[in-house]
Amino acid sequence: MSRAQQFVQYFLSHRHVTVELIQKIEPERYDYKPAPTSMSAKELATHMLFTFYQFAQTAKEGNPRVLTEKIEENETDLRKLAEVYTEKTKNLLESLTDEDFERTLDLTKIFGAPFSVAQFLQTAMDHEIHHKGQLFVYVREMGHETLPFFIKRG
Amino acid sequence: MSRAQQFVQYFLSHRHVTVELIQKIEPERYDYKPAPTSMSAKELATHMLFTFYQFAQTAKEGNPRVLTEKIEENETDLRKLAEVYTEKTKNLLESLTDEDFERTLDLTKIFGAPFSVAQFLQTAMDHEIHHKGQLFVYVREMGHETLPFFIKRG
Repeated sequence: MSRAQQFVQYFLSHRHVTVELIQKIEPERYDYKPAPTSMSAKELATHMLFTFYQFAQTAKEGNPRVLTEKIEENETDLRKLAEVYTEKTKNLLESLTDEDFERTLDLTKIFGAPFSVAQFLQTAMDHEIHHKGQLFVYVREMGHETLPFFIKRG
Repeated sequence: MSRAQQFVQYFLSHRHVTVELIQKIEPERYDYKPAPTSMSAKELATHMLFTFYQFAQTAKEGNPRVLTEKIEENETDLRKLAEVYTEKTKNLLESLTDEDFERTLDLTKIFGAPFSVAQFLQTAMDHEIHHKGQLFVYVREMGHETLPFFIKRG
């Protein structure tokens, strides 16, 4: 199995759970915040989808320029956004070669240090898992009691 | 840097944040639950501390027996538990050799598949990050507004 295939499997083992949680958020709860200083459910979900896509673009292009750009999206349905961005991100990750994973990204300006693409993509996974953990609390507070395990393998 | 040193650095980059969040939980909020079906703050914190320790023991011993055991603890102060279990876990992780990371753990009965120690420890990290994300929401709901970044590097 190529490194890209292995990584896509790892990505989807968490992203499928993210998508399942996003599907539980009804449009009338998009503005739900667990605390006044929290991100709203909609902000949290789009932050996760957009960030991983931008990390994958950076891994592919080798240029952190996209990380400072704001994604403009007319689509407001979180379920559709989850589907579209998961597919776009998966396609980008699948296009990486084994050598790409060893490339160094100059992220000194943004993260204070250079990263290999492999390390950088692990940080993207950590970011996804971190916010997915929060999403579990949001969805439970919305009244959902039967929730998936935090990883979906196989 | 050995694989153990690299992994301990990765572990602490998240665990230091976990400990910082645990320190914000006052004893009178130990029973706080964001939703009726959630773990209480105390259950969540101890679950994180005990689970990583048991994963590290399993990685070291090569035997998943400890994963089915319940840790009996008389200490009830979460700050002390965080300190003690972080130290015990770090010591175990530091004792792993580069070869240990390549060993296969027979986890078919528990997880449905064999894992390399490296994969197994990545799952321990994913578990820590997942629940730490939840802890951020708990602590924010307790009224804390100035919270650390989700990774603490260097």
